[in-house]
Amino acid sequence: MSKYWSDAIQELVPYVPGEQPKDQQFIKLNTNESPYPPSPKVAQVLQSFDMDRLRLYPDPDASRLKQALADYYGVDRSCVFVGNGSDEVLAHTFMAFFRQPQPLLMPEISYSFYEVYCNLYAVDARRIPLREDFQIALADYDQPNGGIIFANPNAPTGRTVSLDEIEQLLQRNTESLVVVDEAYVDFGAESAIELTRRYDNVLVVQTFSKSRSLAGLRIGFAIGHPDLIEGLERVKNSFNSYPLDMLAISAGVASIEDDSYFRETCDRTIATREWTAGELAALGFRVLPSSTNFVFASHRYIAGAELMGYLRTRGVLVRHFSRPLIDNHLRISIGTDDEMRQLISTLEEHPEITRL
Amino acid sequence: MSKYWSDAIQELVPYVPGEQPKDQQFIKLNTNESPYPPSPKVAQVLQSFDMDRLRLYPDPDASRLKQALADYYGVDRSCVFVGNGSDEVLAHTFMAFFRQPQPLLMPEISYSFYEVYCNLYAVDARRIPLREDFQIALADYDQPNGGIIFANPNAPTGRTVSLDEIEQLLQRNTESLVVVDEAYVDFGAESAIELTRRYDNVLVVQTFSKSRSLAGLRIGFAIGHPDLIEGLERVKNSFNSYPLDMLAISAGVASIEDDSYFRETCDRTIATREWTAGELAALGFRVLPSSTNFVFASHRYIAGAELMGYLRTRGVLVRHFSRPLIDNHLRISIGTDDEMRQLISTLEEHPEITRL
Repeated sequence: MSKYWSDAIQELVPYVPGEQPKDQQFIKLNTNESPYPPSPKVAQVLQSFDMDRLRLYPDPDASRLKQALADYYGVDRSCVFVGNGSDEVLAHTFMAFFRQPQPLLMPEISYSFYEVYCNLYAVDARRIPLREDFQIALADYDQPNGGIIFANPNAPTGRTVSLDEIEQLLQRNTESLVVVDEAYVDFGAESAIELTRRYDNVLVVQTFSKSRSLAGLRIGFAIGHPDLIEGLERVKNSFNSYPLDMLAISAGVASIEDDSYFRETCDRTIATREWTAGELAALGFRVLPSSTNFVFASHRYIAGAELMGYLRTRGVLVRHFSRPLIDNHLRISIGTDDEMRQLISTLEEHPEITRL
Repeated sequence: MSKYWSDAIQELVPYVPGEQPKDQQFIKLNTNESPYPPSPKVAQVLQSFDMDRLRLYPDPDASRLKQALADYYGVDRSCVFVGNGSDEVLAHTFMAFFRQPQPLLMPEISYSFYEVYCNLYAVDARRIPLREDFQIALADYDQPNGGIIFANPNAPTGRTVSLDEIEQLLQRNTESLVVVDEAYVDFGAESAIELTRRYDNVLVVQTFSKSRSLAGLRIGFAIGHPDLIEGLERVKNSFNSYPLDMLAISAGVASIEDDSYFRETCDRTIATREWTAGELAALGFRVLPSSTNFVFASHRYIAGAELMGYLRTRGVLVRHFSRPLIDNHLRISIGTDDEMRQLISTLEEHPEITRL
């Protein structure tokens, strides 16, 4: 606290990211990072980069990266926005579109940064409860609003809504923007990017941090109608002319260009997820169906906080959210096969867990 | 324009950075980049970086970089904030401190991004005219205010105010924050970092983009009382948990550690600046005294816009601002000796320029 702070700063409740231990001994299943390195082409491009060029500013428009994304997704470059991680893209999205007289609608359980942005930009929000089994029912969003945002697949539940449901929402909800946060879409859900070609009221946000194994480089993007992208560019150019550094731009392009590596690592994660879900179920966990690189699970007899603590003492980090409705659950990132085997055997050593 | 934009977005007038031509044929004296590469230690660290680690999120606190800066400047780590370029640091500064009932005071001629931030965060600003010869007189800032910001050395004029003058301002102006933007301080001005040890109402902002030749990597920082840093951290953690990527953090540390290279390149730039200023004067320019890596100059007979156009057709980019009071001036970045010799000989070829 300081008398020099703007009043609103006193009220901010910042987002708390998952722990990043400096000690590499942990099996780290707490922040949904990929267990696989980025494409070898990324390393090649970075290692052969002429570092003397770093004396110059990067392209403020990151045109090469925008063009690579446009080509990959079959849209025009004017439909692509890029930012310093999808969190920055989301922040600009809240500022550009959601400061409206009507409240923003979002799922009661979702990516908890949404509430932080509401707080930061004084956006009034209405939290819509999930249905049974933590499902988002888009019919519940048919009410006056200044915008709608949800993650698909949703976090931390891993559950999806279908493209049909989203398209119907876009047809009913024509006076405000619908933002679909697809951080985890590459692990088995359908992307709404296709809908951005036909609807001007949908913006899709994605990240290189999960399926592209580039959390360490901070690259996010949005795809939507050029008028929406222009709104984001106005905010970006009023905030920081060069949010993406030269190395991130080059690495991002190299990652997009190596599609076979991308598909292979996504497929491997999906296979490991399915094995893990089966094993967890056999150990007495209730596991939600997941289309992401994590599973969301609760044990029949053992509380979530207790299990998280148990795993931590055994060198396995998982994420636990102490908030109503989900405080009995663990969000467990999908690591390598070996890491998941160690998770399962560590759980088997818990005195109250027995294989069914 | 789109009906989905927040109202305030319609009014934004984004900052326009200097041109970044993709064609490397230009002699680029328009964005105050260093003509020298970053320290060879930076290239070493980046080229030997284990790129597989990029799958993980960076340290959200960038502790290593904060510690390196704290050690270098002799302050505690709790006095250091880092961001994705000093523009991001400045943006967070406006949000954290300058949204006040009283207007922000800033020089009428200064870094033009300040006005953009005022617009973005709805900060009311009062622009204080410069004195003769474009000097900032801090006595003019003795009036009710919600904050004060100025660049020292100022941009695009290159002129400085002394530490004594700043300290006296801090003693008179105890109810609001004074921000000193020191983007160019390493080229010959005195830093106010020393004052942050004794005054809790001053925040110093610096960048790695000029004197450290790392514009391409986006690293900025602020130093001030821990309560001020905490205000910035609240905004940062409500915006983007990981604004600095892993490579930028490592490169920043390596740059700080190579102090002899840093001093050598700054000294070289200063020597080239003094030679350039003398030559420009001999060609009929009025050149303001500069403590930066650029000179701000106007020709006695030839308009600034015309000269900029002339130089551009001859392959030399300089910056011209078409705004009252300074529209007859050019801001010319200091390049290598060779580049500056080419600038001078190109000017000598102008039909209306003769050596005095």
